[in-house]
Amino acid sequence: MSPKITTELLKQLRQAMKSPKYVQEPVQAYIVPSGDAHQSEYIAPCDCRRAFISGFDGSAGTAIVTEQHAAMWTDGRYFLQAAHQMDNNWTLMKMGLKDTPTQEDWLVSVLPEGSKVGVDPFIIPSDQWKRMSKALKSAGHDLVPVKENLIDTIWTDCPQRPCKPLITLDLSYTGVSWRDKIVALRSKMAERKVLWFVVTALDEVAWLFNLRGSDVEYNPVFFAYAVIGMNTIRLFIDGDRVMDPAVREHLQLDSNLEPEFKIQVVPYGSILTELQAVGTGLSPKEKVWLSDKASYALTEAVPKAYRYLTPYTPICIAKAVKNASETDGMRRAHIKDAVALCELFNWLEKEVPKGTVTEIIAADRAEEFRSQQKDFVELSFATISSTGPNGAIIHYKPVPETNRTLSVNEIYLLDSGAQYKDGTTDVTRTMHFGTPSAYEKECFTYVLKGHIAVSAAIFPNGTKGHLLDSFARSALWDCGLDYLHGTGHGVGSFLNVHEGPCGISYKTFADEPLEAGMIVSDEPGYYEDGSFGIRIENVVLVIPAETKYNFKNRGSLTFEPLTLVPIQTKMIDVNLLTQEECNWVNDYHQKCREVIGAELERQGRHEALQWLVRETEPLKVQ
Amino acid sequence: MSPKITTELLKQLRQAMKSPKYVQEPVQAYIVPSGDAHQSEYIAPCDCRRAFISGFDGSAGTAIVTEQHAAMWTDGRYFLQAAHQMDNNWTLMKMGLKDTPTQEDWLVSVLPEGSKVGVDPFIIPSDQWKRMSKALKSAGHDLVPVKENLIDTIWTDCPQRPCKPLITLDLSYTGVSWRDKIVALRSKMAERKVLWFVVTALDEVAWLFNLRGSDVEYNPVFFAYAVIGMNTIRLFIDGDRVMDPAVREHLQLDSNLEPEFKIQVVPYGSILTELQAVGTGLSPKEKVWLSDKASYALTEAVPKAYRYLTPYTPICIAKAVKNASETDGMRRAHIKDAVALCELFNWLEKEVPKGTVTEIIAADRAEEFRSQQKDFVELSFATISSTGPNGAIIHYKPVPETNRTLSVNEIYLLDSGAQYKDGTTDVTRTMHFGTPSAYEKECFTYVLKGHIAVSAAIFPNGTKGHLLDSFARSALWDCGLDYLHGTGHGVGSFLNVHEGPCGISYKTFADEPLEAGMIVSDEPGYYEDGSFGIRIENVVLVIPAETKYNFKNRGSLTFEPLTLVPIQTKMIDVNLLTQEECNWVNDYHQKCREVIGAELERQGRHEALQWLVRETEPLKVQ
Repeated sequence: MSPKITTELLKQLRQAMKSPKYVQEPVQAYIVPSGDAHQSEYIAPCDCRRAFISGFDGSAGTAIVTEQHAAMWTDGRYFLQAAHQMDNNWTLMKMGLKDTPTQEDWLVSVLPEGSKVGVDPFIIPSDQWKRMSKALKSAGHDLVPVKENLIDTIWTDCPQRPCKPLITLDLSYTGVSWRDKIVALRSKMAERKVLWFVVTALDEVAWLFNLRGSDVEYNPVFFAYAVIGMNTIRLFIDGDRVMDPAVREHLQLDSNLEPEFKIQVVPYGSILTELQAVGTGLSPKEKVWLSDKASYALTEAVPKAYRYLTPYTPICIAKAVKNASETDGMRRAHIKDAVALCELFNWLEKEVPKGTVTEIIAADRAEEFRSQQKDFVELSFATISSTGPNGAIIHYKPVPETNRTLSVNEIYLLDSGAQYKDGTTDVTRTMHFGTPSAYEKECFTYVLKGHIAVSAAIFPNGTKGHLLDSFARSALWDCGLDYLHGTGHGVGSFLNVHEGPCGISYKTFADEPLEAGMIVSDEPGYYEDGSFGIRIENVVLVIPAETKYNFKNRGSLTFEPLTLVPIQTKMIDVNLLTQEECNWVNDYHQKCREVIGAELERQGRHEALQWLVRETEPLKVQ
Repeated sequence: MSPKITTELLKQLRQAMKSPKYVQEPVQAYIVPSGDAHQSEYIAPCDCRRAFISGFDGSAGTAIVTEQHAAMWTDGRYFLQAAHQMDNNWTLMKMGLKDTPTQEDWLVSVLPEGSKVGVDPFIIPSDQWKRMSKALKSAGHDLVPVKENLIDTIWTDCPQRPCKPLITLDLSYTGVSWRDKIVALRSKMAERKVLWFVVTALDEVAWLFNLRGSDVEYNPVFFAYAVIGMNTIRLFIDGDRVMDPAVREHLQLDSNLEPEFKIQVVPYGSILTELQAVGTGLSPKEKVWLSDKASYALTEAVPKAYRYLTPYTPICIAKAVKNASETDGMRRAHIKDAVALCELFNWLEKEVPKGTVTEIIAADRAEEFRSQQKDFVELSFATISSTGPNGAIIHYKPVPETNRTLSVNEIYLLDSGAQYKDGTTDVTRTMHFGTPSAYEKECFTYVLKGHIAVSAAIFPNGTKGHLLDSFARSALWDCGLDYLHGTGHGVGSFLNVHEGPCGISYKTFADEPLEAGMIVSDEPGYYEDGSFGIRIENVVLVIPAETKYNFKNRGSLTFEPLTLVPIQTKMIDVNLLTQEECNWVNDYHQKCREVIGAELERQGRHEALQWLVRETEPLKVQ
């Protein structure tokens, strides 16, 4: 992978930063955040502005360009990748390390007095705007909105915004109709005494209306906003798509509905003016509810006195707690996913020794096996298929320049998942197709101990996920090891593979408490730069736990793994496991054998079944 | 303990809330926070306004009185105590429970439209003011400063503000002179480009000048502020105390010092006007550094553009990292403290069966044994001496009405500590002087497992204490048990027994990372209302840890117990311990025997020595 040469682009951007065509006064710095106008993590090609200007295309990162400098902030998952993809014009700011300045502190340290810092108000979330603006102001600078996106002005071959057909989901998948979701939302609005709710996140719009799309790769969402009043529903979406009879039927656009359930379809581009109109028509007690991560532009459209901002919207919280139809679907999706992976690993075991399987071939093969399964839609993220040193690049994606051949001498890490119409999967397994070294087994076993510590944890109702993060690290910490990423993220139901408001990470504090029905990943790892990467990831469902006592009648929770793919026992140093940990592995493998074995049998995949049976042999306890 | 009858007082307060003598316009609610003008946790009798109006005298709580309601917010440590001490005029708001409204939400729910909420601007920290004011404003109400404290207007027999003599500490105790501390502070100020630093917390003033006082019971502090400029030092303190020749010598008030180290002594009461004068003399780039917990009144004295607010001051952070003189002192203090407790427990073992020892007698006896030790100054907090059901009142203090006799049938919990000139102690032991039940032993053992999990934890440099909190709960959680308080707090060096900026609690996120030299408590517990309380507390020092590997060269940390008092093995169910946990207990007891044994020997306390030897017999591993 050679870095993108950005000298000319940066020159053009710096010219735009001074051009009266775009800015009233020159801006001395320009911020290019990761997201789109919906603060999506995964974005459409037309929104990949940060990747365009810098070359770094990881899922998280913020670029800031000044007259003299160009700097990129990203987190531990992407340190190596960003360093590879960016040329010498760029300084990498490693977030989470002690000496790395914040964006605000860095700006204050490099800017001349009284500078203006520009940003596209549609791209920056309002909470970030607020923090950044305050810090800059207190140092004598100003954060200013630049209406025209300056990257777009120099991006001559920028792709078009996608506008793909919609998929309707019936009750058997969603469990709750969009109408009932609107009723529940309005009752939350009434509780908080707000009259309007603005849906800005793409997955929230999709969830609310039981629709899916494919405007963004891997995330089954579509470009839209919604504004829900107590008696009105406005869906901002480009019109052609809702001409599809199935969509019209699903949304009951041509039925004689009660007025409060009649959906008005409005052009996507008119959200700002429509919201401004809502804002001007308000009387003192009428509030508009927005996420504090909604764009600065939309937030400003509502006069400050009428705004009701929360870090998580009621839709985000409701969406996180899966109902029975959704958890059933997630279970089915994970069974199919496990079938595909058993096929893959069985195939790899035979093919890798021949020296003909590259990371890309393995990834393609994984996709092929998944696509054979019922209701497969697409992958849920770019497959991380990495061997040897590439495994240490936490969010690596193989490309021809880096593509490495799998061998019996290196660890192979596969982090992959898919969107099925009934659920979303995300699973990581780390395998060795030869004989792992004692050190590799030792590290793998610490990661496994951390994985089990979270998966088997019992904790009171109301516990926030971040309080479980250290359980995943304890065994690594004991030996002076660690990993520089969170332990888990929320997972959508045929929706985004990363979703809020819950997760398991030392980095957050404002996560919502875990409750039964929530689904998160459990994925500790260990990475040695230049050598190998290890990660063990299951998607797990929060379920009630039976305990001996019940303090204050609070009840307890634990996790049930939805992912049912064998964990390679060859990589385990059994001497480092406790009896309980051995039992956990054996029970888990027993369940894999039963559930996935039955499905392999049903699908007539006998060779993969034999592989599964072999890989789920109980550990020999010492 | 019978509740305080507050009907008449509340009537008077409600009159004051409407009286043009005190308020320009009537206030519909009045907030009575816990603290004093320095946001101290422990306060002088003249500042116990919340206790005066409500009867509830725990260390944490906020009262809010409206026309119709009187409500008290406090945390899990005080639920029982507050319920006992308050009459029916008061509603107890149990913080941390799911359905308890925040103060802001509650106010919004009970206030008539467009209400004014009053508070003494000297008592409310500016960060709380900001949060509260914002929440009230967004609901159409106003938070207003009421200059005259309304409680003081109805408190006819309010005691005088104390003004006791000062104690000077020489280098052998402090390790660093006040002059060098000022130099270090000014270098931190230069780093952040601030010109003035306002010291508002009493322990920060005491630490900075290497002085101690006794204005507040248990906390060796004195009423003072300081304002440090790059070339000036102003100490706001009432003048008589600095007439003491030892203090004058210590502060070099009569020496020919360089001007930048010359201390100007200014009356305590003039801080507001002096700070306003500093504020008006500033030019645009000249900032004044204040804690964001400084009072609203002082914060407002500095124009907003010139304020530099941080959650923790550089003094708070420097104070937390103990130097070699301080850790040596803390070790000495803990050895003396352990001697006193060995004497006490030996005595209790003989006396309790006679049925003549009450909680108060036991507490007094503990104080007596401590006071026999060198450099003893006073207790570091009110001794929690509690048996049977009283043990479940987390911050219980025995009074004649509740005083219970220790017996061979009930668990006894003693949480106590002292101020010695060389250090501050805080230790909790839970004992049974008869035969504990299997259930009591089971619960005790879970608490012990949590205690060990924290004490023996190894974690990377830079880890925040709150990430260790769940380790203390894991064994309890597994059985559906928990405790409603944090696991540990910072401990001062002959200073406040509770200090920031570090601790071990699920409740904080903004704590500073742990580093070698910091001192915290490790005190998990389990409490069964109406039956018993269990807590095991050591004060522990953060030290570097040796590990097999060293990821990213970050280095690792662990804890060394400073407290060396046996943990009653009779209460331990050895079958519930792992081999490692057994070894920890045996190693700990071995160290108690060696270190404290030598000191008991030296002090000729032979009977206590025999008790120690008996109590430190190794656990029989199964």
